[in-house]
Amino acid sequence: MEPIQRIERALESAVARAVAEPAPPRLAEAVRHAVFAGGARVRPRLCLTVAMACGDESPELADAAAVAIELMHCASLVHDDLPCFDDAATRRGQPSVHVAYGERLAVLAGDALIVQSLETLALQIKEYPQRSADLLMTISQATGMPHGITAGQAWESEPEVPVAAYHQAKTGSLFAAATVAGAIAAGSADQADSWRLVGERLGEAYQVADDLRDAVGAEEELGKPTGQDTTHDLPSAVRELGIKGAKQRLDNLVEQAVGAVPECAGAEQLRAGIIEEMERVLPKTLSRNAA
Amino acid sequence: MEPIQRIERALESAVARAVAEPAPPRLAEAVRHAVFAGGARVRPRLCLTVAMACGDESPELADAAAVAIELMHCASLVHDDLPCFDDAATRRGQPSVHVAYGERLAVLAGDALIVQSLETLALQIKEYPQRSADLLMTISQATGMPHGITAGQAWESEPEVPVAAYHQAKTGSLFAAATVAGAIAAGSADQADSWRLVGERLGEAYQVADDLRDAVGAEEELGKPTGQDTTHDLPSAVRELGIKGAKQRLDNLVEQAVGAVPECAGAEQLRAGIIEEMERVLPKTLSRNAA
Repeated sequence: MEPIQRIERALESAVARAVAEPAPPRLAEAVRHAVFAGGARVRPRLCLTVAMACGDESPELADAAAVAIELMHCASLVHDDLPCFDDAATRRGQPSVHVAYGERLAVLAGDALIVQSLETLALQIKEYPQRSADLLMTISQATGMPHGITAGQAWESEPEVPVAAYHQAKTGSLFAAATVAGAIAAGSADQADSWRLVGERLGEAYQVADDLRDAVGAEEELGKPTGQDTTHDLPSAVRELGIKGAKQRLDNLVEQAVGAVPECAGAEQLRAGIIEEMERVLPKTLSRNAA
Repeated sequence: MEPIQRIERALESAVARAVAEPAPPRLAEAVRHAVFAGGARVRPRLCLTVAMACGDESPELADAAAVAIELMHCASLVHDDLPCFDDAATRRGQPSVHVAYGERLAVLAGDALIVQSLETLALQIKEYPQRSADLLMTISQATGMPHGITAGQAWESEPEVPVAAYHQAKTGSLFAAATVAGAIAAGSADQADSWRLVGERLGEAYQVADDLRDAVGAEEELGKPTGQDTTHDLPSAVRELGIKGAKQRLDNLVEQAVGAVPECAGAEQLRAGIIEEMERVLPKTLSRNAA
């Protein structure tokens, strides 16, 4: 089964547990909307791709890790879109959760998704105590404090924003968790340091690609309003380096990510996959094929 | 060591991990404010009291469970106080987190506390895999969906509010988790059903006591604005039964809780402690001593 099919099936099963009776019906709809209104599933695909490159000896554990990562990502998007943050009316081409269901249910849907994420891993402890413990720590540290997503987002409320720490926490942490979690789930925790580097570099690369799309991409291609970084005065690789410089940095980051992939059964295929994926996420006008 | 000292020490240690470098300083302050600006620690005291009644053979695991429960409670209060919910300016006699640190950091502090709560339990898996798995499931189910705190709070956004399910999810679930978690941590998971009943009845009792305080208590005694239930049109035992009827229901609930305490080393002391505690939380004008 392709990674994306495994992910959608595992997400459906995790969300089904959350929205079962006696869940309040509108909260259940808000959670479904948060998880299933589009989304490229970049992080869980990365997690499963690494698990498969490492032999994927415990596929149900890898699926749980991928789900935990995606649910955390969805939670962070729902809260990021709130009026007090980006006040985004759309997400993935659909109304954002707070626009569709109100601010209260957006806050609660995000909270419930965070809990559901870690609960999905807790369900695996009895079968895989050691690996589940490592996965829970990896994913909670990537999302909580002092250096996970919540910390990254909070840098926007500080008088001085340390740009590298901000990006590392807000974006890099969950990418690093995705690669590390894939390795842990497949029993390759001894290669965690290499996989962390792959994830960090890819996280930075996606961030730069996002900055490039924000600067040059068409709004319809992205499914959300563009020009947000300038509007909200956020740090951006394009503002710092210009479009050409940002594209150069992106290429360097992809090269470093590819170079950091440790020896494993599927290393070659994974390296090729990374390059293909990064072509996919670039604005079409900047992709190698266009140039 | 008294339960309250164990709780404060364990909370300090869990929060210290979260606010360590490189946490954004204002988020770190907001989290400290959320956890340490007063608070009676009712739920973690209940958890430790049950663990001690059951022999408390793994005190560090009981402490972790108590911390996980209190951090979830603090997270729910921070989010409950947000402008889109109760829009509360004060909490425990202090400015609420969003008033002191802004709405963004209040959302993020709540998110980070949810993660930190479950991470505190994840740290115990390697030593206590089976009990930690049970604790993680107990506390995540009490806080997430379909019937935890987030679900309970979400009933307020439905056109029809089923009163019993609303209170059970919003308040009862974490009380039940507190008693069950105390028993699990002490190796008495086989008595979980009895302890769940004790927790559910006590949760209802605290809710009725809260309604009574909201109706008759002085604002300075409570540390937060009173009359909120009427202001926000929320279900309330006092609105349903009147003050005398609500007091009668409270007495019945305490009796049921006491009657449900299973046989264990510290059963008698625990039963007496429940009665004493419920006297403490009643508005002074309604307590047995006053009558």
